[in-house]
Amino acid sequence: MNANPTLKQISDKFSSLQDQIIAGLEKLDGQQKFKQDEWLRPEGGGGRTRIIENGRLLAKGGVNFSHIHGPLPEFLTAHAPGAQKFDVAGISIVLHPHHPFVPIIHMNLRYFETDNGHYWFGGGIDVTPAYTDEAQIRAYHQALKRIGDQTDPALYAEHKKNCDDYFLIKHRDETRGIGGLFFDYSREGSLPAPQLSKGQWFEYASHLGEAFLPIYTQFVNDNQSKKFGESELHWQRVRRGRYVEFNLLYDRGTHFGLQTGGRVESILMSLPPVAEWIYDHHPAPQSPEAKMLEFLKPREWV
Amino acid sequence: MNANPTLKQISDKFSSLQDQIIAGLEKLDGQQKFKQDEWLRPEGGGGRTRIIENGRLLAKGGVNFSHIHGPLPEFLTAHAPGAQKFDVAGISIVLHPHHPFVPIIHMNLRYFETDNGHYWFGGGIDVTPAYTDEAQIRAYHQALKRIGDQTDPALYAEHKKNCDDYFLIKHRDETRGIGGLFFDYSREGSLPAPQLSKGQWFEYASHLGEAFLPIYTQFVNDNQSKKFGESELHWQRVRRGRYVEFNLLYDRGTHFGLQTGGRVESILMSLPPVAEWIYDHHPAPQSPEAKMLEFLKPREWV
Repeated sequence: MNANPTLKQISDKFSSLQDQIIAGLEKLDGQQKFKQDEWLRPEGGGGRTRIIENGRLLAKGGVNFSHIHGPLPEFLTAHAPGAQKFDVAGISIVLHPHHPFVPIIHMNLRYFETDNGHYWFGGGIDVTPAYTDEAQIRAYHQALKRIGDQTDPALYAEHKKNCDDYFLIKHRDETRGIGGLFFDYSREGSLPAPQLSKGQWFEYASHLGEAFLPIYTQFVNDNQSKKFGESELHWQRVRRGRYVEFNLLYDRGTHFGLQTGGRVESILMSLPPVAEWIYDHHPAPQSPEAKMLEFLKPREWV
Repeated sequence: MNANPTLKQISDKFSSLQDQIIAGLEKLDGQQKFKQDEWLRPEGGGGRTRIIENGRLLAKGGVNFSHIHGPLPEFLTAHAPGAQKFDVAGISIVLHPHHPFVPIIHMNLRYFETDNGHYWFGGGIDVTPAYTDEAQIRAYHQALKRIGDQTDPALYAEHKKNCDDYFLIKHRDETRGIGGLFFDYSREGSLPAPQLSKGQWFEYASHLGEAFLPIYTQFVNDNQSKKFGESELHWQRVRRGRYVEFNLLYDRGTHFGLQTGGRVESILMSLPPVAEWIYDHHPAPQSPEAKMLEFLKPREWV
C-alpha cells in the first residue's frame, strides 16, 4: 500500500478505473460501445464523459471521469479552513439496463484536495432493482462488507447506514433501492475509523472501484435470463420514475452540479431512458411488485 | 363586483370552478371521466383531487381543489406579521394530452387568509407545447392580456414577466413553455396595481379561472387534427422530460407541498404519464423541433 498517495496518483487511478470498467461493460453488453465526450471547464479542469445507449444489456449508462480545479466554493470552507483553491478528481457511474430483472447501479468515487493541505475521500455504491430477492441482496451486501473489512471492520456498518439514510425518497418513505455504501469527508481522523491513513482511505476507495465490475456482472448473470413481459417493463418504468424523483428532488451531487454550472449532460446522464408516472399507483397485494416495496425499508442484510 | 368577498365566497368560487372545468374537459375529451379522491389533512382541512387517465384527448390530468387550515408555517410569517393561523383555498390544474401538437397546460389559483386579517391571492397559467407556432402563441397571450385588462391594464405585462422568470429551466436556459401569467402575494397595495381592492383581485382570479376552458379548448381545436407519427411522439416525450426537470428541481409549490407533508399523489399528479431522457439530445437544425426551442426564450407576444 502507498501510505501517502499524491493527487496525480489518485486521479490516475480513477481514470484507469474508468477504462477498465468500460472495457468490462462493453464485454458484458456484447454489442454496443461507449462513446466519449471530452470537455473542459472554463474555471479549470475538465472531464471525459463516456456514454452507452441502446446496447443489448444497457439501455443507457454513463461512466464519467472528471478532474476539475479552481477557487474553493463557499459551502466547502467549513471543511477546508484557510483554503483558497481546490482539486477534485472523481469517477461517477450510472447504468440503466433494459431487462427489468437487472438492477440499476450507481457508483461514485471522488478525492478532494486543497492548496493548504486539506483532503478527503467520498463516494459510494447503491443498487436499484425493480425486482429482486433476499439471496441476491444478501450476497451483494456480503460483498460490500468484505470490501470494507479489508481496510477496517468498522467501515461497512457505518457506510451502509449512511447509504440507507442518504438514498431515502422522503416523501414516499422508501429507499431508492437496496442500499450499499456511502461515505464523505473521509480522511485521517474521520469516524468510524480515525486511525486510517490517507493511503488506507485510498485503498478502500480503490477496492470499491475494483469491485464494481464483479458486483454488477453477478447481478447481470443472476437475472438476465429471466422471462418477462410488458407487465414487468411497466413496473420497471414506474420504478425508474422514483429514481428520477430522488435524483432531481434530493440528490446533493445533482443539485451541486447544476447550481455550479457543471456540464448538464454529464450530470443528467443519471436519468433513465424512460420513466412513467401513474396516479396513486399501488401493486396488487402479495404480488412480486408489492414484495419489492418491502425491500425498500432499511434492514440488516449481513 | 363583490367589493369584500369572504373566505367562504372565494373558496366556493374555486370549488365551483373545479366542477365547471371538469364538466368542460369531460365534454372535450368525449370518452373518459374524472375520478375523485377526497382527502383530509390531519392538521386541518382537506381537498378533492380529481384525476383523468387514459382518455381520448387527455393521457393524464388533474383538476384539484383544496381548502386547508392550521398554524401558520414559519416561512410565511414575513408576509403575515402577528398571524397564528391561516386558511388557504386553491384550485390546481395540470393536463397532459396524448396528441403531441396539443400543449400541456397548467393553472393554479389560490387565496390565503390569516386569523389577524392578512390575505393575498396567487396563481397563474402557463402552457407547454412540444410544437407550436407564432399565431397560436400570440392569440393565447392576447387572450391573457384581455383578462388582465378587464381588471387593470398593468397586470398583463407584469404577470407575464413573472411567468417567464418563474418557469425558467435554469440549467438549460430555456423556459418550460410559452409563458402566461404568474402572480403571488397580491392584495390591496400590491404592485403593479396598488389601488385594486380585494374584490378586484378576486375578480381577476375569477376571470382567469373562467378563461381556462375557452383557452384550452382553442389549443385543442387548433391542433388535435394534425397528423403525427412516432417521431413527434418521441419529441413530446423528450419535452415532457424537461417538464419533469422543472417541476422536481425548481417548482416552489412542489417543494413546499412535499416538505410540509402534503398529499404526495395530489402534488405529483403534475408529472407526465411518460418521459424520456436521451444523452445530449439536439434536434436537427431548421427542424420543427429546433424551431420550437426558439419559442422557449422570453419575448413580447402582444
